[in-house]
Order: sequence, then structure tokens, then C-alpha cells
Amino acid sequence: MEQRRTGVIIVAGGAGRRAGGALPKQFRIVGNLPVLGHAINAFARALPEAPIVVVLAPEWHDLWHDLAARFRIARHRCTAGGAERFHSVRNGLDALPIDVSLVAVHDGARPLVSEELIRRCVACAAAHDSAVPAVAAVDSMRQLDAGGTSRPVDRSVLRCVQTPQVFDAALLREAYMSDYRPEFTDDASVFERAGHSVTLCEGERSNLKITVAEDLLIAGALLDPNDSGREQDL
Amino acid sequence: MEQRRTGVIIVAGGAGRRAGGALPKQFRIVGNLPVLGHAINAFARALPEAPIVVVLAPEWHDLWHDLAARFRIARHRCTAGGAERFHSVRNGLDALPIDVSLVAVHDGARPLVSEELIRRCVACAAAHDSAVPAVAAVDSMRQLDAGGTSRPVDRSVLRCVQTPQVFDAALLREAYMSDYRPEFTDDASVFERAGHSVTLCEGERSNLKITVAEDLLIAGALLDPNDSGREQDL
Repeated sequence: MEQRRTGVIIVAGGAGRRAGGALPKQFRIVGNLPVLGHAINAFARALPEAPIVVVLAPEWHDLWHDLAARFRIARHRCTAGGAERFHSVRNGLDALPIDVSLVAVHDGARPLVSEELIRRCVACAAAHDSAVPAVAAVDSMRQLDAGGTSRPVDRSVLRCVQTPQVFDAALLREAYMSDYRPEFTDDASVFERAGHSVTLCEGERSNLKITVAEDLLIAGALLDPNDSGREQDL
Repeated sequence: MEQRRTGVIIVAGGAGRRAGGALPKQFRIVGNLPVLGHAINAFARALPEAPIVVVLAPEWHDLWHDLAARFRIARHRCTAGGAERFHSVRNGLDALPIDVSLVAVHDGARPLVSEELIRRCVACAAAHDSAVPAVAAVDSMRQLDAGGTSRPVDRSVLRCVQTPQVFDAALLREAYMSDYRPEFTDDASVFERAGHSVTLCEGERSNLKITVAEDLLIAGALLDPNDSGREQDL
């Protein structure tokens, strides 16, 4: 298969205060690197040629610049986040070189993404124009009904969706020309709304999203202790 | 409110080989105790008067007896697991004293359950005859359709169900007199099938179920280091 150039957008635009602490969660240090630095470095290792754009709220650009300078973090450029995730990704698309033919969009709060998962998603999108990693639900699930009752849901047909979500660049850019809608919770939903089908691929249970303070402890426990010793790869 | 005597059933009947390693996951040591020991001790601390029945596959009774003797694990009795979780819980109900008026059923693979969560579930069930702890889904969710496609699901109406699930003892015993059905994935589904409604209460994100080997690392990171120093409470 023809090699397709991939651009990477890492979305770290939210204020991220849910995890507690003085700094938004994407700047917290876990296993010798800021959370966001782990995500950037994973992409730099998996896709050494890929341009990486980090989307950050404008008020955090200076802090991130200072912080990144203290660690071995792979080369990337920053662009400004928007009002919603949708606008942040759109800004990221504008900041990527025009010649990329695939775009991987990743949550900056998912530092544990593996090189294998990134490559698997890129290969899937190269073949199918989209790749959305997903894992089975471990817990039983219930659905809330109006009126305060709930009922069981068949979890065998449910998948928990992760990032990176990878798409054909032209189709994704076109999809992001639409107007924002509240149901656009991820890139897959934007891509689908534009009339394209979404291809699921196998995610990784360890690819967790840092949401609350305990997740930082979990990430620290799961991080490969060799990760921070691999600067030579960057 | 009148004090209701609670019995505890901890289900550890599965072979549990998914987490890898020589021993089923409920016997693996995390933070100075076997996984199952953490669960037992949490209930003993939260409900000091409650009889605790552990349901184990018969082939593991000797091993558990030997293992439990090496640690400070609260008093409990063991009974034999059955073919499915449903049969294991039924055996647990038979092994509880007849005079309990609430029954808490817990997964032996959830060692991080807090005393607060146990007490909250018991209080909810004392008021509503049932209590099923649940937490919001963090990831976006999709539903698989026949034919290999998938579509987004509104995660705001989905809840991930945990244990302990606590029920009025008479109603739960009656529900468990029914025949086994494959859709009985938890006690709530058995209780509902008998015509009763299920009350959800707030779960805890940290109350994870040990399913794969990485979950043991996570549990180790999240365990309160003071837990193993609290034998005087048992």
C-alpha cells in the first residue's frame, strides 16, 4: 500500500480542572513527564515523520512552552483551542501542513497510548478512511429512562470509544466545514454527520483518559518505566 | 430507621484466569493482601456485625484456607460456587443466616470498594429494597449493529454498574428461586425479572473490577497504604 503522510492533532484545549490540583491535568507530571508530553512522545515514536500540532487554550501556551523546555518532549507546534472540542480540532486541522493525507486526532489526556495502537489505527484508516479504537465494556451497563427508572443494556454490543481517531484528511477537513452541533462529542461523530461511515478497530484497555485525580495514580502505575529513557528515539 | 441486619455474599467463584499468572485473580496479592482479602476486610470494617459468606469454586477452598491463614483477613465462611454466577449467589444465600433482612452481593474481584460505598448502598437498600451502585461512562460509547456497522450512543443516559448490590433479603431469596436465564449477568437483573424495580445509587470510579493483569497494577496504585495496618478494626 502506498505510504500516506499522517498529521497528528493532540487536543489539550480544555481547562481540565476536574482532576484537582493547581495545574490542568494535561500538565501534571506522571512518570517523569507531563501527561501531554507522554502523548506527544508516543506519536513521535510511532510516526517519526508526522507533523504534530498541539491544541491548547491560549492562556496556557506560555506555561506549556516553559514546561516543555524542561523535559525531553518531541518536536511539535502549538495552536489555540476554541470554544468547544469541535473548534479546537478545526484549528488543529488549519495548523497542519496541507499535504497530509491522514489525520490522527488524540486526547491530550490519554498519555498511555501505545505505539502499537497508533500504528494500528493509522493502518486501519489507510485502508478504510477512518479508524476509531474501541474496547468492550467491562461493567454491566444500565440505561436511565425518563422518570428516574433504569433498565439493563446488553453490554456485548457496546464499545467504549478511545483516541487516536484517524481519518482521511480530505474527508475530515470537509466534515469540519460544517457548523458545530452539541452531539459532536468526538471526531467520529463529526465524520459520520458528513455522511461517511466509521470503522472501529481494537483499542487498548490501558489507554485511559485522565479525568479525576485517581487517574493520575493509575497512569503512574501503568507507565512503562523505560519510557522516559527513550529520548534517543525522538 | 429500624436497624436491619445485613448479610454479605462475596462471589469469587469464577476460575478468573483472564488476568494471567498462576493463581486466579482473586488470590493475587496486592498491597499486602490477596485481592479477595481486601474485599472481605472492607465489609468487615463497614458492617462489623454482618455475617460474610465467600463463594468459591470447590477446588480452591483448600488453597484459600491456607492463604487466608497467612494474612489478617476478617472472619468469614466459605461455600461452593456453582455453574454460573447465578448459582453461586444462590448457594451464598443458602449459606447466610436466615435472620438477615438485607443482603449485599459483591464481586470478589473488586478489592477497592470503600467503607463509604458499602454503607451508602446498605442505607439506600434499607429505604428502597434495592441499591445498585453505578457511575457515569467516561468514554464516548458506540453500539454495534448487525452487519458490522456501529452508531453513537448517548452516554449521558448510560451507567456502568458495580457491586455491592444490596437487596431486601426476602425479595432477593424469592427472586433467586427462579430458573437460571443467560441474561442474568448480575443480581439486579435477577431482582428485576422477579418484578421488582431497581434503585441506582452513586458508585465510585475507583471501585474497579480486576479483569486483566494491568488491573492488578492499578489496584496496587489506588490502595490506601494504611489499609493493611488496620487489622485492629477486624
